[in-house]
Amino acid sequence: MSQREHLLVRAAFKQEIERTPVWVMRQAGRYLKEYREVREKAGSFLNLCMHTEMAAEVSIQPLDLIGVDAVIMFSDILTPLIGMGMDLNFDNGPKFNNPVRNEADIDALKLPDPDESTPYVGSILRLLRSEIKDRAPVIGFAGAPFTLASYMVEGGSSKLFQVVKTLFFNRPDLARKLMKKLTRMTIDYLNYQIENGAQMVQLFDTWAGIFSVDDFREFIFPSIQEIFAGLNDQGKVPRVYYINGGHHLLKLAAQSGADVVGLDWRPDLGETKRLIGDQVALQGNLDPNVLFCEPEVIKAKVKEILDKFGPQSGHIFNLGHGIDKEVNPDHLRVMVQAVKDLSVR
Amino acid sequence: MSQREHLLVRAAFKQEIERTPVWVMRQAGRYLKEYREVREKAGSFLNLCMHTEMAAEVSIQPLDLIGVDAVIMFSDILTPLIGMGMDLNFDNGPKFNNPVRNEADIDALKLPDPDESTPYVGSILRLLRSEIKDRAPVIGFAGAPFTLASYMVEGGSSKLFQVVKTLFFNRPDLARKLMKKLTRMTIDYLNYQIENGAQMVQLFDTWAGIFSVDDFREFIFPSIQEIFAGLNDQGKVPRVYYINGGHHLLKLAAQSGADVVGLDWRPDLGETKRLIGDQVALQGNLDPNVLFCEPEVIKAKVKEILDKFGPQSGHIFNLGHGIDKEVNPDHLRVMVQAVKDLSVR
Repeated sequence: MSQREHLLVRAAFKQEIERTPVWVMRQAGRYLKEYREVREKAGSFLNLCMHTEMAAEVSIQPLDLIGVDAVIMFSDILTPLIGMGMDLNFDNGPKFNNPVRNEADIDALKLPDPDESTPYVGSILRLLRSEIKDRAPVIGFAGAPFTLASYMVEGGSSKLFQVVKTLFFNRPDLARKLMKKLTRMTIDYLNYQIENGAQMVQLFDTWAGIFSVDDFREFIFPSIQEIFAGLNDQGKVPRVYYINGGHHLLKLAAQSGADVVGLDWRPDLGETKRLIGDQVALQGNLDPNVLFCEPEVIKAKVKEILDKFGPQSGHIFNLGHGIDKEVNPDHLRVMVQAVKDLSVR
Repeated sequence: MSQREHLLVRAAFKQEIERTPVWVMRQAGRYLKEYREVREKAGSFLNLCMHTEMAAEVSIQPLDLIGVDAVIMFSDILTPLIGMGMDLNFDNGPKFNNPVRNEADIDALKLPDPDESTPYVGSILRLLRSEIKDRAPVIGFAGAPFTLASYMVEGGSSKLFQVVKTLFFNRPDLARKLMKKLTRMTIDYLNYQIENGAQMVQLFDTWAGIFSVDDFREFIFPSIQEIFAGLNDQGKVPRVYYINGGHHLLKLAAQSGADVVGLDWRPDLGETKRLIGDQVALQGNLDPNVLFCEPEVIKAKVKEILDKFGPQSGHIFNLGHGIDKEVNPDHLRVMVQAVKDLSVR
């Protein structure tokens, strides 16, 4: 390597750091008026995801406006499913007009070449790398297979996941068939992102936490292991596995092959470090609601989390979930500055 | 004691049992057409809660129709708040027209005598005891202080709990004041239920799991300890503490003074028994979605859970969350019968 790696990448690999790096899930988003302006120009959410220049523009906004240590490409976890044959729209939250309900539906899913089905993702990443240069690393991401499957089978968002769970419990053979196809797609999609410049990749398993430990082990864990084993540039491009509401799955998450386990705000960071910190680095885990509080409260809560992890490398500061659209950007700036000030080694 | 205690009570105290007892959260509910008929006669949900005969009738239905081992009184966790001065309605989910937002609102909350504010709860319990006699024990319940506070501060149901969390984080002094008042009310309310015949009491902390371990320890845990320490008939009337999404709080739940910790469907029952099973009995924890599956799947999942706990006393079978209104009652019967058949010692 001709130059030193980014702070984020060094923390992910537990290499020497001068302070704790910080970025925020959904940092390119609606809480920024600058984002809302571009979003309006784009017309629709999907148009924004597919428009190289505008998607790159909103991706970079939090680097310039907030001072985070990484840029995550603006996209949505569901867009690669369009190339599999899913009829996606975002008229009022994500919706699929052709939900997957039986074996024929699963058989009909295509395994697309990401350069044909999501060429805009490649061009966004390349544009981000050329615009940002060495100011910060660029993060790519994908939805994990079950999280994707939940939307595909339910036909959209769900509260109780009754349809997808019933399919999985009644027909584990079909569940495995669907997960296998999504696993293959995800490996290709993330490797495509790595080839096009992603310097860290995060696998979002937003809904895996709705399963019991046993059901997770049976239906989900093998696909996560397969994905992380199948990614290129191991040891160079860190791989993050994030589950929301996954406290009961932390030990398995640590054995998934991920370099970093992303935490929601519920687990105690110190206890989690003692539990799995010898196997992985940790990312998180401030309660996103803290950003609605007074600046002094925000700083105190940041300090608590930094203190829990301690001075070793292996911690990437983040919220435990995506930032809410009602947050005052000044409050996020307070958080980011507090991490920078309070974590100097 | 002139006669042998009920199976449920013996399991809660880890005394000798002939098989595992079983009941189901929300067993008196909309999935039964017999419930829906009474509910329609009652006119409104609140009327049904406050009508002694009709509330007792729906409470007993699952004993006769499903064969569960306990009757839980039909009521709602929010009704005791009316006597504190909260303006409650259920027009479209629970709503408070006068949400609690500041110190004056908290100061204005009254500490009612439960016999004056909720006399119908006492009469429902007395009627249940006299109608059921020794066929099954009667369970009373209350919402835990934070779960009540979340509805009172938000003004109804919430997804992100932004208002109540912001209040708690910004003004811990006000949070403590509110929790203190709710704690006192809850002790009086549950003791009133015990005096009127409740043979087990469950404290529902449906939303406590949205807090991190530290925030739970600061804001919630002291009130739970105070409640369980303040209840009458200790060692005779088992006390259950249930948190939804509380896997990260299990060790504290076991130290709360509860005799039984109620689990949602996420934790592994065997691991949880090893973690806290020497301190408390455990209740749960079948995924409620399993009831949408084929009977053979239901039986297999029941067996898995029974096997995880093993043959010792100290397990009460239940779902990990309330039964869904779309469940076929025949499927619940399959579950209950499977517990009875497969757990014989």
